[in-house]
Amino acid sequence: MSELIATYHVGDERNPEKKAEEIALGLTVGSWTSLPALEQEQLRKHKGRVVSAEQINDGIAEISIAYPAANFSADLPAILTTVFGKLSLDGKIRLLDLEFGEELRSFFPGPRFGIEGVRERLDVHDRPLLMSIFKGVLGKDIDFLSSQLKEQALGGIDIVKDDEILFENPLTPSGKRIQAGRRVLDEVFFETGHRTLYAVNLTGRTSELRDKAKRFAEDGADALLFNVFSYGLDVLQELREDDSIGLPIMAHPAFSGAIASSPVYGVSHPLLLGKLLRYAGADLALFPSPYGSVALERESALGIAEELTVESTFKKAFPVPSAGIHPGLVPLLISDFGIDSVINAGGGVHGHPGGASAGGRAFRQAIDAVLCGISLGEASESRQELKTALKLWGTPKKEAAK
Amino acid sequence: MSELIATYHVGDERNPEKKAEEIALGLTVGSWTSLPALEQEQLRKHKGRVVSAEQINDGIAEISIAYPAANFSADLPAILTTVFGKLSLDGKIRLLDLEFGEELRSFFPGPRFGIEGVRERLDVHDRPLLMSIFKGVLGKDIDFLSSQLKEQALGGIDIVKDDEILFENPLTPSGKRIQAGRRVLDEVFFETGHRTLYAVNLTGRTSELRDKAKRFAEDGADALLFNVFSYGLDVLQELREDDSIGLPIMAHPAFSGAIASSPVYGVSHPLLLGKLLRYAGADLALFPSPYGSVALERESALGIAEELTVESTFKKAFPVPSAGIHPGLVPLLISDFGIDSVINAGGGVHGHPGGASAGGRAFRQAIDAVLCGISLGEASESRQELKTALKLWGTPKKEAAK
Repeated sequence: MSELIATYHVGDERNPEKKAEEIALGLTVGSWTSLPALEQEQLRKHKGRVVSAEQINDGIAEISIAYPAANFSADLPAILTTVFGKLSLDGKIRLLDLEFGEELRSFFPGPRFGIEGVRERLDVHDRPLLMSIFKGVLGKDIDFLSSQLKEQALGGIDIVKDDEILFENPLTPSGKRIQAGRRVLDEVFFETGHRTLYAVNLTGRTSELRDKAKRFAEDGADALLFNVFSYGLDVLQELREDDSIGLPIMAHPAFSGAIASSPVYGVSHPLLLGKLLRYAGADLALFPSPYGSVALERESALGIAEELTVESTFKKAFPVPSAGIHPGLVPLLISDFGIDSVINAGGGVHGHPGGASAGGRAFRQAIDAVLCGISLGEASESRQELKTALKLWGTPKKEAAK
Repeated sequence: MSELIATYHVGDERNPEKKAEEIALGLTVGSWTSLPALEQEQLRKHKGRVVSAEQINDGIAEISIAYPAANFSADLPAILTTVFGKLSLDGKIRLLDLEFGEELRSFFPGPRFGIEGVRERLDVHDRPLLMSIFKGVLGKDIDFLSSQLKEQALGGIDIVKDDEILFENPLTPSGKRIQAGRRVLDEVFFETGHRTLYAVNLTGRTSELRDKAKRFAEDGADALLFNVFSYGLDVLQELREDDSIGLPIMAHPAFSGAIASSPVYGVSHPLLLGKLLRYAGADLALFPSPYGSVALERESALGIAEELTVESTFKKAFPVPSAGIHPGLVPLLISDFGIDSVINAGGGVHGHPGGASAGGRAFRQAIDAVLCGISLGEASESRQELKTALKLWGTPKKEAAK
């Protein structure tokens, strides 16, 4: 019988074994030793099981409980309610990990495209992808977006995503953005041979998302940006599962800080932004890098990337460490997240003194340098855009010290 | 123009004014003073505004930002992404409150039934309602549930809700639970004249919920229990808005601890479990009481109840303080939450030495005593079930001291 093993950190707990036993029974059959033998027989397949329970340091206990898959339907809302429903309200407790039994895992789709599928769409196989973000888009019109998109594409950027706070609006409705984007990106491809994908923000009421995404696909959208944590993980999964949509999905971490930021409460970063996004079907997952303006602890960021790319029955999803990224950080990012990651910049592209196009080229030059084993300093001697970027943003001390 | 004012607590912030200005611009138009006058004119209606920013105590700043409603579509995912999307990832920050402008508020439904509507269904107008929960239901069959329901109904309980961890399963599928429940409750009504409502757990994949809820309504369900935080607030709102469902909705706080428990991160209890649930359309909202086994700080619990019942354009929703409630706590609960609340017990009903029926009666006796201004001790002299309950669970010191 398939199981789901949940691991928690519990604070201020003096008796982890007792607490674990309370969880294992309280969240499944309720009680056990007091039950008659016949009833025990009847309920055995529903009884939670303590896998481990130990004090790991002063005041924090690590507890693992196995929940029989027979207790819930094979969907994420039922799973979250079972393993962290009432329990999420029970004092200092954080859900660290969920280990899905093989049968249970088979109910989840994983990414439709994954790293390989997205690479094929771009025909780029041997380097990290480069992504950038529209900037300052509220109140602007389609021409503004089109020219910003063109600049970015000409800079050699592989994926351009909508600002996640751009919703339906009279000046730049999603359908027009897709049409205009398609035209711009096809032009750039025709002129330069470089293919850029545009990820359009899928927004609105929950029940309208699937039809809207289908229209996006018909209109020629390349990929979807989705604020999954403002909706729900199961909504993401349903978008992934719908064959008539069939677009890569980029999961944005908006609102996830409300669930994952506390070290004491909530859900761990690797589980929330890594494993669960991948199981539900994200092809790319954004999260704060350890180095930028809104930084995540390095261990958490690496943990997310590990969950997105570890070998499993699911396709791998692209880690997209984000926020405050500039070309000087490229060596660190590649060292941490490898070739199979996306380097994602907003201000680091648009803030380049030569404009977004030069900003994109500076990043591409930095990526090329790292892959050739040349230092950024050396590469910048013959690469003007990179030189300008390094002068403006510098290189982090850790890289400079290498 | 309608605005949405978001109030935050920011930790470790030495310069609240600067931080507030960064948020107001960074999450709207991006920059301002550097823009040409013409562009400022064009973007003025999208620019965020600092309402207030002050240090309220050592290390914590309270910041209020007004976001123009023109910046987002009038749905909760867009609103959460705007006011606490990227910002939720930005260090020690907690979303305390959202103040909706009148026009923006008009896009939200509020409860369909509310306190008055639920009272009408029960024809109970002058006392707190009494609710209880099925216990130990995993692995049990319909007969078990039916007899447990009958006991509770005979005890004078007004609403019986499913255990939130009961999902679709071969032994007690939701359709059969509704049919059997209908039969039992109609019998009890015929025999005793007491009407009990049964709230069935609405579970499964997100896109199937509305059709499922319609079938529930057709099958004679009285109310829906919904684990809204494992799905999404907008999913709750769509269930509320669907006229072909038309059932009272009881929002369960499962998983909400992951979002609200930290005092430093996430979303405040009154906003998450009070205001947003009411705006989205919950008729009843469960949350941990300040007194039971899984306790919330009293201020937070009262804040939730205040948001559910404060005068507004929306109907009022029932506060349901829960977890570890026994009859001895009834005076405290009524003192804190008033007549327009629901007293909700699991173990405090089923654990009564005389069974669930006696457990229900003990609660009703306690409620009657409080409303008549009689102490529980005095009332218990002539009320055997209450006497037994008080002997088993006692009365809290605060009440005993009165």
